[in-house]
Amino acid sequence: MATPVQFWFEFASTYSYPAAMRAADVAAARGVTLRWRPFLLGPIFGDQGLADSPFNIYPVKGAYMWRDLERICARLGVPFRRPDPFPQNGLLGARVATALSDEARPRFVRALYSAEFARGETISDPAVVRAALEAADCDATAMERAQSQAVKDALRAATDEARALGVFGAPSFTVGDELFWGNDRLDEAMDWALKP
Amino acid sequence: MATPVQFWFEFASTYSYPAAMRAADVAAARGVTLRWRPFLLGPIFGDQGLADSPFNIYPVKGAYMWRDLERICARLGVPFRRPDPFPQNGLLGARVATALSDEARPRFVRALYSAEFARGETISDPAVVRAALEAADCDATAMERAQSQAVKDALRAATDEARALGVFGAPSFTVGDELFWGNDRLDEAMDWALKP
Repeated sequence: MATPVQFWFEFASTYSYPAAMRAADVAAARGVTLRWRPFLLGPIFGDQGLADSPFNIYPVKGAYMWRDLERICARLGVPFRRPDPFPQNGLLGARVATALSDEARPRFVRALYSAEFARGETISDPAVVRAALEAADCDATAMERAQSQAVKDALRAATDEARALGVFGAPSFTVGDELFWGNDRLDEAMDWALKP
Repeated sequence: MATPVQFWFEFASTYSYPAAMRAADVAAARGVTLRWRPFLLGPIFGDQGLADSPFNIYPVKGAYMWRDLERICARLGVPFRRPDPFPQNGLLGARVATALSDEARPRFVRALYSAEFARGETISDPAVVRAALEAADCDATAMERAQSQAVKDALRAATDEARALGVFGAPSFTVGDELFWGNDRLDEAMDWALKP
């Protein structure tokens, strides 16, 4: 029996987009349970003294990231459009994802990432989030539940859990205490989960 | 006919170690010509306002890198020992690598990376560099040629060329103007070189 893989994603994160679009298929093909874990990178970047995306702080690296992401999306066969401004504020999306059931969450997450990185929409706009819920055939009342204290606390607790696991960027995958960072490490995380 | 792949490496760079140990085999298996390009990351990090390795500036990321590198080396079947202090000063090694012939360079590069990351030796020590030349069956006079103005100028020109290509870290691979960053992108660089 494989250990479940925790998939830590943040809506502001560019490489979380291709990871979100392929993670369920990869996990199903490998027979591994995937747990979709929204969290917030802002507080964790804050711990590191980063007040903005590292891709904005280091623009030469940022230029490379956009080209690399374009190539990754082309290979994966998913559309790509750079959102402006970058990074987007993913707080509302993360709260809504937290409010949803484990069954509904992946559909919403893919729909909201598509709005952001396939169509370049502004995901801090409640209308965009609402449209993603609808496109993903999810319960629209998640918009209201997202503002409850219970959901805010759960998202904060998830961010604390990620920090305690050593997560410093997104996407990340954890298998027990073992951390894998980046879309590039999805398959290795699956290998780890399947170790005897 | 495949476009040659330029392999940009820096002796201070951790992920350049597994890349250097496998790059020749991967390129040969794919029928691609690999050009081994020593350069210096220091001036390029300086452009970005980085006065130390990002793995020291961001220690949570650094802790992950060491664990990730350990896993990568285990999968590759190469020994790993963390050098102390980190980063090592790779200037002498880069000059010696520059002074060598294209034919001899890969053997020396692998020998010096092994000293640094398989045995944890101090590669700024001329005795360690000399031993790597000997282990790699390379011309020992490269130690003296390394201090010539021509070699110093050639290494500076290589660093300028890397910067102009958008290189911001190591290892990097370029195919024409197309940049691929990281040991993880070696195979994708080969794919690019083989595109019709």
